[in-house]
Amino acid sequence: MSIESAKVRLEKMLGSRFRVTRGELVQHGQNESIFPVTPPDAVVYPTNTKEVAGIVTICSEEACPIIAWGVGTSLEGHALAFQGGVTVDMSMMNKVLELNAEDFNVVVQPGITRKQLEHELRASGLFFPIDPGADATLGGMAATRASGTTAVRYGTLRDNVLALEVVLADGRIIRTGSRARKSSAGYDLTALFVGSEGTLGIMTELTLKLYGQPEAVAAATCSFENVASCVDAVTEIIQMGLPVARLELLDSAMMRGINQWDRSLNMTEQPHLFMEFHGSEASVHEHAEIAGEIVSDHGGSEFSWATRTEDRSRLWKARHDAYYAAKAMRPNCMVLTTDACVPISRLAEAINETVADIEASPLEGPIVGHVGDGNFHIALLLDPESEDEIAAAKTIQANINHRALRLGGTITGEHGVGIGKMRYMAKEHGDAWKVMSAIKRALDPKNVLNPGKVVQLN
Amino acid sequence: MSIESAKVRLEKMLGSRFRVTRGELVQHGQNESIFPVTPPDAVVYPTNTKEVAGIVTICSEEACPIIAWGVGTSLEGHALAFQGGVTVDMSMMNKVLELNAEDFNVVVQPGITRKQLEHELRASGLFFPIDPGADATLGGMAATRASGTTAVRYGTLRDNVLALEVVLADGRIIRTGSRARKSSAGYDLTALFVGSEGTLGIMTELTLKLYGQPEAVAAATCSFENVASCVDAVTEIIQMGLPVARLELLDSAMMRGINQWDRSLNMTEQPHLFMEFHGSEASVHEHAEIAGEIVSDHGGSEFSWATRTEDRSRLWKARHDAYYAAKAMRPNCMVLTTDACVPISRLAEAINETVADIEASPLEGPIVGHVGDGNFHIALLLDPESEDEIAAAKTIQANINHRALRLGGTITGEHGVGIGKMRYMAKEHGDAWKVMSAIKRALDPKNVLNPGKVVQLN
Repeated sequence: MSIESAKVRLEKMLGSRFRVTRGELVQHGQNESIFPVTPPDAVVYPTNTKEVAGIVTICSEEACPIIAWGVGTSLEGHALAFQGGVTVDMSMMNKVLELNAEDFNVVVQPGITRKQLEHELRASGLFFPIDPGADATLGGMAATRASGTTAVRYGTLRDNVLALEVVLADGRIIRTGSRARKSSAGYDLTALFVGSEGTLGIMTELTLKLYGQPEAVAAATCSFENVASCVDAVTEIIQMGLPVARLELLDSAMMRGINQWDRSLNMTEQPHLFMEFHGSEASVHEHAEIAGEIVSDHGGSEFSWATRTEDRSRLWKARHDAYYAAKAMRPNCMVLTTDACVPISRLAEAINETVADIEASPLEGPIVGHVGDGNFHIALLLDPESEDEIAAAKTIQANINHRALRLGGTITGEHGVGIGKMRYMAKEHGDAWKVMSAIKRALDPKNVLNPGKVVQLN
Repeated sequence: MSIESAKVRLEKMLGSRFRVTRGELVQHGQNESIFPVTPPDAVVYPTNTKEVAGIVTICSEEACPIIAWGVGTSLEGHALAFQGGVTVDMSMMNKVLELNAEDFNVVVQPGITRKQLEHELRASGLFFPIDPGADATLGGMAATRASGTTAVRYGTLRDNVLALEVVLADGRIIRTGSRARKSSAGYDLTALFVGSEGTLGIMTELTLKLYGQPEAVAAATCSFENVASCVDAVTEIIQMGLPVARLELLDSAMMRGINQWDRSLNMTEQPHLFMEFHGSEASVHEHAEIAGEIVSDHGGSEFSWATRTEDRSRLWKARHDAYYAAKAMRPNCMVLTTDACVPISRLAEAINETVADIEASPLEGPIVGHVGDGNFHIALLLDPESEDEIAAAKTIQANINHRALRLGGTITGEHGVGIGKMRYMAKEHGDAWKVMSAIKRALDPKNVLNPGKVVQLN
């Protein structure tokens, strides 16, 4: 019973879809954060659910850790095999299995990426709205309960996964949920697996909610003198109950970053809101007008409209590239991204205190935020060689997380726990964290599924 | 270790809030379905979380079943102590603890009823939209993942509980979720407890999402020649993505029932849609116009508008009283209510086949449905003395449930499992039902929390 004998058996089962070349292992040990490269012992590429079940059965029998892998865009080291083991790369399971247009849902395999799905849906008149920026896989997005720029209107993956097929730790295949829009038939296992980061099972099929393409879409930007007045405007927009589809804050450092990233943007380097409105022509007009008045009341500029599809795409591309734009602001830096989320009434306090923290530190930390949700990110730009900078960043991060908890919020709005947030889980959840562990033990008694993440098994 | 010694200890702890009078026990053995009266061994009335924890600790030590009780409006025998034990009546824990108007949430105790909450919120400009008809407690609604007429727009209790305080089977008190609008911090315990029917823990505090009162509300009714064309209109309205706030079907038998129930209504006794639109004046007008065109395309009548608040209240009261109106249609009958929910594209098939079943039976079964969700109820009116009628009703019910599963739906859209749906759980969930049992064993190893409901152990 060992990782080595799991490897022998997996190679026999999968042939060329079992890989142990150095390049392959290193590639699956990368991450978009500050964790060191952590290669697994092997990478496997299943092509269907039965193969996933076979892989899990072997690994379970051999007590070999199993880590599901999408495209590696997660920010908390979720998919790093830091206890060794086998990485299950889902890229060969990337099909749309069934488009149920009249029921507004689609059944996909977990390896499909957001942009692939968008492409597959293009002729249907429907769309999947959740957009975390990165071109992540839908399996990865579901596993981390991802959200992004549109969650303020459409919710998160929690709200948009109707049903799952999951391979359990012992290799059994189950289905959760149904295609009905609601159900009261027992425990909500779909919600339990969404956000469980591959620690309770491996998703092999997802049924996702779709939405009709809005008749009208309009995007606007506006700038403010300072972050505080920008946040005040956001708070009022949300408290009005205005159904804005995106509502993003970028501070002046971040605006400088995206101007450098895409020189054609050439925007004022002041704190900005990027907004989008979805609906009928009439309602988009109505909502934009109300938002414009609120912005103006808080000293914001006139709206600058991106009405043509290509202008809008460029704008959101810039926003979505914020992580890479921030990273490019400092040559050879690495980025530590924070992810606090607080009640909207405490957002100004959370951001203002964080800005003061950054100003008092030696670091640069551009801010972007899904502020309509109370969620904001600081991209702390670090010299990977400097222990002082890393220590300073960790202090800022800790302050942000403790502040979020003090204000009634959470340490992670959308990035998940992975390795990076483990140290804050006891404080956020108290004994509820132990309940999570009890569930983990019940569903994965041998602790083979992504061990060491989300829960702590003493 | 026994129920008897639990009773001695609970009386010592609670004094006059421990009750064993016959009347009290029988009252807590009632239900609004066809289950026989099943009195518990004792009823207790805690006044705070600590007391609930104390009660649970004693019962757990004494291996005494614990059943939480709201107001007893559930339809599947959820709160019946059919293995004996102590019923925990939550009526003394019925306060609003905290109204966070600027964050659109409210913290309540579980014993508050829907109408009490409505009353408490009246001056705030905010409302809690979920409306299952009955004046249930919010704890009971959360425990069954209730929904009702407005779920088509606002979702179910799954979507509207932000956070919980829960007493676990061993007496520990935990908090799940936070006041942030979203989180990725580990397993979604809030979603796990919502819909768990008191089998995993006892909710002692709920943080609920609130919504701004819409600027405009308009209700309309229209009639159709037959149920089939009515359902076709519904399907098209939903497939248009029209954000209607309520969309209810009542067949001609049900219309006859509510006319008898409230003679001032005096409506045509043909299949009807009852609809409601929420939004700005302009959007309500726009949506009503589109809905009117669809209805007309399917041979429906002109809309009859209920614009005055009192007319609207009377209309929805009639709809909400449908269960009692149906029951009144046949003197001394009892009512077996079905609760299938299917994908909207299969709704016509599900309802048409069900109508044929009822027509071929000796029974009357008025239909009401939250058809915008694909959810519909048949109220089968039975002579409680007639074994033939009970058998016929159970056959119809079984057909409806198996049909729902065949069509990709669920056996219960909103009523929950309780005792009544246990026999269908294996078929709906397969091995996923065993996963539910594994979770139950992990969280309640002695099986003291509402034993025999939702999951089957061994």
